[in-house]
Amino acid sequence: MKMIDVGEKPKTERVATARGFVTMSAATVRRIRAGDVEKGDVLAAARLAGVMAAKKTPDLVPLCHPIALSGVDVTADPGPRGVAVTATVRTVDRTGVEMEALAAVSAACLTIYDMLKRYEKGMSIQAIELMEKKGGRSGHWVRDG
Amino acid sequence: MKMIDVGEKPKTERVATARGFVTMSAATVRRIRAGDVEKGDVLAAARLAGVMAAKKTPDLVPLCHPIALSGVDVTADPGPRGVAVTATVRTVDRTGVEMEALAAVSAACLTIYDMLKRYEKGMSIQAIELMEKKGGRSGHWVRDG
Amino acid sequence: MKMIDVGEKPKTERVATARGFVTMSAATVRRIRAGDVEKGDVLAAARLAGVMAAKKTPDLVPLCHPIALSGVDVTADPGPRGVAVTATVRTVDRTGVEMEALAAVSAACLTIYDMLKRYEKGMSIQAIELMEKKGGRSGHWVRDG
Amino acid sequence: MKMIDVGEKPKTERVATARGFVTMSAATVRRIRAGDVEKGDVLAAARLAGVMAAKKTPDLVPLCHPIALSGVDVTADPGPRGVAVTATVRTVDRTGVEMEALAAVSAACLTIYDMLKRYEKGMSIQAIELMEKKGGRSGHWVRDG
Amino acid sequence: MKMIDVGEKPKTERVATARGFVTMSAATVRRIRAGDVEKGDVLAAARLAGVMAAKKTPDLVPLCHPIALSGVDVTADPGPRGVAVTATVRTVDRTGVEMEALAAVSAACLTIYDMLKRYEKGMSIQAIELMEKKGGRSGHWVRDG
Amino acid sequence: MKMIDVGEKPKTERVATARGFVTMSAATVRRIRAGDVEKGDVLAAARLAGVMAAKKTPDLVPLCHPIALSGVDVTADPGPRGVAVTATVRTVDRTGVEMEALAAVSAACLTIYDMLKRYEKGMSIQAIELMEKKGGRSGHWVRDG
Repeated sequence: MKMIDVGEKPKTERVATARGFVTMSAATVRRIRAGDVEKGDVLAAARLAGVMAAKKTPDLVPLCHPIALSGVDVTADPGPRGVAVTATVRTVDRTGVEMEALAAVSAACLTIYDMLKRYEKGMSIQAIELMEKKGGRSGHWVRDG
Repeated sequence: MKMIDVGEKPKTERVATARGFVTMSAATVRRIRAGDVEKGDVLAAARLAGVMAAKKTPDLVPLCHPIALSGVDVTADPGPRGVAVTATVRTVDRTGVEMEALAAVSAACLTIYDMLKRYEKGMSIQAIELMEKKGGRSGHWVRDG
Repeated sequence: MKMIDVGEKPKTERVATARGFVTMSAATVRRIRAGDVEKGDVLAAARLAGVMAAKKTPDLVPLCHPIALSGVDVTADPGPRGVAVTATVRTVDRTGVEMEALAAVSAACLTIYDMLKRYEKGMSIQAIELMEKKGGRSGHWVRDG
Repeated sequence: MKMIDVGEKPKTERVATARGFVTMSAATVRRIRAGDVEKGDVLAAARLAGVMAAKKTPDLVPLCHPIALSGVDVTADPGPRGVAVTATVRTVDRTGVEMEALAAVSAACLTIYDMLKRYEKGMSIQAIELMEKKGGRSGHWVRDG
Repeated sequence: MKMIDVGEKPKTERVATARGFVTMSAATVRRIRAGDVEKGDVLAAARLAGVMAAKKTPDLVPLCHPIALSGVDVTADPGPRGVAVTATVRTVDRTGVEMEALAAVSAACLTIYDMLKRYEKGMSIQAIELMEKKGGRSGHWVRDG
Repeated sequence: MKMIDVGEKPKTERVATARGFVTMSAATVRRIRAGDVEKGDVLAAARLAGVMAAKKTPDLVPLCHPIALSGVDVTADPGPRGVAVTATVRTVDRTGVEMEALAAVSAACLTIYDMLKRYEKGMSIQAIELMEKKGGRSGHWVRDG
């Protein structure tokens, strides 16, 4: 078990974008849109939870480096079959921020689930995936398809 | 935004089980089985990250109650198309532990991704779902299908 | 330095309410009401930050007991001279939750300041005070005046 | 909700100083001076809690950047009507440290309240304010009056 | 890897005491006694760090249960060859608090080292040990010798 | 109490290595080697706990600077009389990483104790010491003897 040494890598600008999806019934989506959720504003809470989780990534993912994030943006968009979440994380550091983007998406999806579980237990968190990654040795990577 | 008052609910035994899946290529699964991963033992790290994340759930999910967990068990099993993760969380408290089980699965999946991303960036975290929930007002719930 | 032993005290229902105020110019209040703040929804973020801080109180206040909170509600209301914040925290435990209510108010006020500091640096956080406290040996306490 | 991107801003030396005040009765001030407080040394605990809170600011204030603090100094001085707290925080980074200074003051004030609440519940935390800020695009700012 | 289920165990009063020792030169001990340490009051900081670490034990020790501590007392006593640290932790819960007592001692010792390392790098942390444990199935245990 | 300002020090490469030892009976060492421990893989958990604790050092040790760690490696080797732990931590920063190495060793030792305490309460954590330190103003330091 080790956190691999990155001390020799240069500090460069890096960006990563990830996405995920919480599937739910149309009735539950309507509830979000109507603001009829006892715990409060689902989309605002999800976005905030995502930003905060990006900052906690090294505490959640044991072998992840602590990174000085320079920006985090999380979106949460309700559609007919659920809520789509994306997170874009930026840094100027020695290692990439894909884990931070994935952690932000995960926490935002968990928060959506938490606020709605009273109404629907069978929701599913689907397709948490890296979409794009720029900067660093591995250059520009974009998800296929 | 509020953390709903559960002070009037009785303390009862509660159990929740969740699962998730990290899809990856057969080559990456072989790498896990062969122990050929620079960061170390993927399955042990994933299980430990899952247990620790269960304990951090109220810090990750903003409106979640702090709960005195009495037990957490996380499994991570490699199969032909990836690694299946499950988490079972127990408590004797006023509210359920489904968020703790889902958070444990999420963190275990993120950890698997982190340790293997050097070999395959296109892995996907799929189907993080509650499987079963016992105890409390809503009784015994089992996922369909 | 010690965290005083409360093991002999009975678990009883306890509630505490605290308030605070962030003073600012009328122009900044208008900006909040208009939603014209680059970082996002000030009042939603403040309320969520307050709830999360209540849960982190024993980590912020060194000699404070860890308490199983049963409910937290934070409000943030803009008025002509700034934003009034209140927090009500509930538990069924051996010690009171006034520190949790005060910590929630403090974090909500800091969050309001953070989101608006780009527009006005001279805001002031005023009168963070316990308003009411019920339960436990000291009974019902209400702030004078 | 977003943590605004600061990746293009240069790393420069930055300093911020904040202050706050806990008002209390003369009897309670005497108790601090006499060291007659069951939980221990109020001023030492407050100063330490302030330094630790400065480091936790990005965890308390949701949209705040994580910053590599280079120095933190917290003072706590009893006077006739209560305890005055100040915090000075330094960094060499892309964004300012006013939130860290304000968070340090807040946590120090909460700690003072916690250690003394057994003796006086009506204490008030007053005037948490930024006093001075140096470095960065906005230059040198000093509070009026 | 699992956090073993303790849900069937009764909640009982439990106490654990641990100790440890930081060895150092007589000159460094004199510096502590004289208050001639740039970072501040070594013994107050050590005691506070110990109390706070007791509360963070489940975050530090992966398979440790979260426990509602009812009291923590940490001492730090300078002697001719270094500083002796003890921690006593109490709870009314389903599992013992020996890890909390040991974690408190460890953090107090690390804090002593940190504040004095500028003056002496060769200090050693010695004999972190459980001294006594009461309550729970295993009854009263006292260290030999 | 202050976190001393290091803003004027240059960022340089720094490495620190620390060690520690958990003494136990031969029977308990055999249990580790045989994998006969109910909580799971002792050495993997200890190593992971060590890496995670290195990242949490500024939260554990009150006056310690937050540092951007570039690498952490923790080993745990069973021998006839117990388990020897070492941690090597690297950074490119303004201050050294000896506290991070010592905190990693401490947490790994506590984790070993926790997983085995059911079998042997009298284990002792011994000789947590800095072994070597490179980089920074004080140059290369190696422990005597």
